[in-house]
Amino acid sequence: MPTILGQNQYGKAENRVVKITRDGDTHHIKDLNVSVALSGDLDDVHLNGSNANCLPTDTTKNTVFAFAKEYGIESAEQFGIHLARHFVNSQEPIKRARIRIEEYAWDRIASSAANSKFIGADEVNHSFVRQGQETRVTQITYDGQNWEVISGLKDLIVMNSTNSEFWGYIKDKYTTLQEAYDRILATQVSGRWRFNWTDDEQRMPNWEKSYAETKKHMLQAFAETYSLSLQQTLYQMASRIINHRSEIDEVRFSLPNKHHFLVDLEPFGLKNENEVYYAADRMYGLIEATVLRDGATAQIPVDMTNL
Amino acid sequence: MPTILGQNQYGKAENRVVKITRDGDTHHIKDLNVSVALSGDLDDVHLNGSNANCLPTDTTKNTVFAFAKEYGIESAEQFGIHLARHFVNSQEPIKRARIRIEEYAWDRIASSAANSKFIGADEVNHSFVRQGQETRVTQITYDGQNWEVISGLKDLIVMNSTNSEFWGYIKDKYTTLQEAYDRILATQVSGRWRFNWTDDEQRMPNWEKSYAETKKHMLQAFAETYSLSLQQTLYQMASRIINHRSEIDEVRFSLPNKHHFLVDLEPFGLKNENEVYYAADRMYGLIEATVLRDGATAQIPVDMTNL
Amino acid sequence: MPTILGQNQYGKAENRVVKITRDGDTHHIKDLNVSVALSGDLDDVHLNGSNANCLPTDTTKNTVFAFAKEYGIESAEQFGIHLARHFVNSQEPIKRARIRIEEYAWDRIASSAANSKFIGADEVNHSFVRQGQETRVTQITYDGQNWEVISGLKDLIVMNSTNSEFWGYIKDKYTTLQEAYDRILATQVSGRWRFNWTDDEQRMPNWEKSYAETKKHMLQAFAETYSLSLQQTLYQMASRIINHRSEIDEVRFSLPNKHHFLVDLEPFGLKNENEVYYAADRMYGLIEATVLRDGATAQIPVDMTNL
Amino acid sequence: MPTILGQNQYGKAENRVVKITRDGDTHHIKDLNVSVALSGDLDDVHLNGSNANCLPTDTTKNTVFAFAKEYGIESAEQFGIHLARHFVNSQEPIKRARIRIEEYAWDRIASSAANSKFIGADEVNHSFVRQGQETRVTQITYDGQNWEVISGLKDLIVMNSTNSEFWGYIKDKYTTLQEAYDRILATQVSGRWRFNWTDDEQRMPNWEKSYAETKKHMLQAFAETYSLSLQQTLYQMASRIINHRSEIDEVRFSLPNKHHFLVDLEPFGLKNENEVYYAADRMYGLIEATVLRDGATAQIPVDMTNL
Repeated sequence: MPTILGQNQYGKAENRVVKITRDGDTHHIKDLNVSVALSGDLDDVHLNGSNANCLPTDTTKNTVFAFAKEYGIESAEQFGIHLARHFVNSQEPIKRARIRIEEYAWDRIASSAANSKFIGADEVNHSFVRQGQETRVTQITYDGQNWEVISGLKDLIVMNSTNSEFWGYIKDKYTTLQEAYDRILATQVSGRWRFNWTDDEQRMPNWEKSYAETKKHMLQAFAETYSLSLQQTLYQMASRIINHRSEIDEVRFSLPNKHHFLVDLEPFGLKNENEVYYAADRMYGLIEATVLRDGATAQIPVDMTNL
Repeated sequence: MPTILGQNQYGKAENRVVKITRDGDTHHIKDLNVSVALSGDLDDVHLNGSNANCLPTDTTKNTVFAFAKEYGIESAEQFGIHLARHFVNSQEPIKRARIRIEEYAWDRIASSAANSKFIGADEVNHSFVRQGQETRVTQITYDGQNWEVISGLKDLIVMNSTNSEFWGYIKDKYTTLQEAYDRILATQVSGRWRFNWTDDEQRMPNWEKSYAETKKHMLQAFAETYSLSLQQTLYQMASRIINHRSEIDEVRFSLPNKHHFLVDLEPFGLKNENEVYYAADRMYGLIEATVLRDGATAQIPVDMTNL
Repeated sequence: MPTILGQNQYGKAENRVVKITRDGDTHHIKDLNVSVALSGDLDDVHLNGSNANCLPTDTTKNTVFAFAKEYGIESAEQFGIHLARHFVNSQEPIKRARIRIEEYAWDRIASSAANSKFIGADEVNHSFVRQGQETRVTQITYDGQNWEVISGLKDLIVMNSTNSEFWGYIKDKYTTLQEAYDRILATQVSGRWRFNWTDDEQRMPNWEKSYAETKKHMLQAFAETYSLSLQQTLYQMASRIINHRSEIDEVRFSLPNKHHFLVDLEPFGLKNENEVYYAADRMYGLIEATVLRDGATAQIPVDMTNL
Repeated sequence: MPTILGQNQYGKAENRVVKITRDGDTHHIKDLNVSVALSGDLDDVHLNGSNANCLPTDTTKNTVFAFAKEYGIESAEQFGIHLARHFVNSQEPIKRARIRIEEYAWDRIASSAANSKFIGADEVNHSFVRQGQETRVTQITYDGQNWEVISGLKDLIVMNSTNSEFWGYIKDKYTTLQEAYDRILATQVSGRWRFNWTDDEQRMPNWEKSYAETKKHMLQAFAETYSLSLQQTLYQMASRIINHRSEIDEVRFSLPNKHHFLVDLEPFGLKNENEVYYAADRMYGLIEATVLRDGATAQIPVDMTNL
């Protein structure tokens, strides 16, 4: 046979599980989008259609919902670890499980004290509004021995309205760009960070606290870097995470340079003193890099889109 | 000629204007998406291609950017009023202008006190993160005499994890739905409210404060209504706005019922006590209604998608 | 009570029904997205949460699927007529039904004659590839007496690479646009046309043939009009439909002017003779108009987004 | 310094270039979305903001448009090869270029013979309608010595309405799925194939013909495989390409199993004989695999989203 089967995986993607935990009248939400991908002894499924080694994707979906009840959802990372361990340990043909999770965050709606006797009102400790800012993500991979946990976020839009320059670059025959000494720097952050936790014997990070702190350091580095290039800003964002968070060994960012062009108002007899910008959609610069703790090995893939 | 020209309008849509205002080192952002639609004596443009009465859409775009400099952007509503008045008053063939604006809100990034000597850092009063929750919208229409201002929001996702029931409905031969005495109620709010300000002689509302207050009342009514139907919740949301905001005479909501189905865990020997839900995408119930101040006339269109 | 209830409607949106009809080994597909909106005596549902007059949205969904079996899907229009009649005639409180349908078209996959003995192959009269070009739409409204049928399409992208000019327009202080004597004209067509069939006693149009012919005339008018403005092209597209299709009395188009800008290649020592264009996303001109058969009354709403 | 810089790349993404070629009155379109990513000696840009080795992303954009004029666009692959060679060979610090291209296909609009004297009409050899079916993609990578060309497509939706079964799978405690002996099989194909052309000395494939033939074989294999699992169908699609196209050594598919569930019509006294289906959005099975020519080495990444 002249063709051979290479890397393959399968599972149910985008299981939208919402878990309500009731602490008396106070409710808590975990709102996840869970995707399962399993690999193992699956040649027969591909080559001759025998499904004897195939746990149906429908079963992987059922398992996600059942585990939300059995284990609760302490954090996306913890939940993914439960799932990955289960699939690899419970099914002999399954050698590797990869669980990807998106998490949507919710805030509580403030009550109206003045309206406390409103029809049907009790405390609004069961009422929520979705934050909508970034989407938190995580990916858990387990092969029966080692763990890889890569977490991060996407779609967080940030802007510095000054403290950004760009000059001193190569000029070739196709270069028309004017040097900039005060420009807007805006990007839609897609970032992933890899934890150095790899083994059940090690103590786990506090996943929730780690996320909050990592996001904070990343935002502060973006805000506080006087930028000579988006690459420089990216490096500061990533290295500040590594310097402050010992549980993280590798960071990768994909940062579109969301261009804000100064509008030429001269034809209308007006002077645009860094006030009026046109926010462009496309084209955009796209700046991507990995930053590692010295001695660590890069594992986050170059393309992180689905990660 | 057997065909006649009916309602028509034209203009440049989705002008993405960002205005930075510098108050010393502290910057302020207004981030708008402005769409212009003009109507008037434009039969010739359609019938024989004469553009003598046509102000180019490119000019309407230029005007948006120039006005951001000339008038600033105090609020989306105020900015739209400047634009609409200009187009109608300055061009004889233009009889009516409709300005639609989406506004994207930004928060400031908190600085890291401990890192105050970080390379290149000054105060981060020029650094912002986009809120991402809802998109604020407004539509200004002016015909040379009267104003219509309809503002609102879209894509605000809210959820009550209890205090929602649905029962006592019609049962016909196609009905299989079980009555529900404790269900999740979730929706993605699209709402519009019409101001009773219609005349330059009247005092204008405080557009920014009105928006904040209206959103607050809407959220509280959602949270505090013990719901027997999404229709009932909608009515409470709308009427609470009218009862609290004298500047608003009409409210319309389009509320998709974002279904959260209790997952049947019985096959796995588990009991689902209103804990684990599957969040469905489609199909969804869609509940839409207008609520008016007694005596007011409905003007908000039934279809609000682009409004 | 100072607030009153205005226009309201409800129902299940986006019911994705796929109907396979087996004609021996040859299968036929109808692939629809059906949205139901009902109005009537529904004040109590909004005002006090009594659902006694409310046919659940879940039931409207069930009805869509059951009717696909009971009546088949001859055309989207015919299917919508069955549904609308049912809801109004079978439920006393329901006074008006509006059915919106999107239809996705499929082509057959050609078989490989040379591979006719391939493993598992039989005739591929059950294999399809989705066309993907435009989405066909229809909206049926019935109030127990009269019918309104508005059909159309959206997301059909067309381009003329020449035979388009734009000049002779108003120049004001904000005008910088250069006149164009040979430009690309491209748009993403959203069009709706209203049939003059309104009564069960009248003979129905052949909905499938009418769609095919209307689309053909529209495309030909776009291609064959030497354009002095997109407005002129729009008028030709609409009037050609009315002139050729006696079953249609009103047409409305919403045509974004998808700008293709000539790239300035002079800085690189190159001459751009209408060869290299940059296709912009935003801003875009947006041209909208209704064209009517003489004597007809306009009914298609100005905003057609969800129509 | 405890952090080090890993893989990094940058460039202008999504350059939307449209090239019109005029062959007398007959025009030809190439409509591309071109993304450039460059790597090389770029540590200084990240570490200290020196841009001395940085060719601006704006220049990479200019180059795309200038090359459309200088070289024309014979095929997306050929165009990408010109660009990649230029960036690596012309700039000493640039060691590697990766060009990604999406291509949008256009058909000609048929003229109306009967209307040949229509106002302003000439031949419509300059009028086009976008196909809209799949998006063709390619990725060219060049490091100064070797070439890697990976082409493919995305968003091609296909369906078999019969000849698909799924049974004989693992049943564990979370399995509730019923075995299926006649089901719909539908997927949205994302596929990539790697050419074995790697060296300027080798003769290049005919890129346009290769694409057309590869798509044809892929569709026929989908249609003609009697399927016991989507994995089996995937393997047939990929291996048929390798067996018929000697220029291709590796194929990877990512195939969401777009579930079509038989609707239970029993409660309405109806029997659903594989006629009425509900087309679900999420969750979906996701089946992914690489198939290689015997002896070839896998190079297509596991995650192909942006590829």
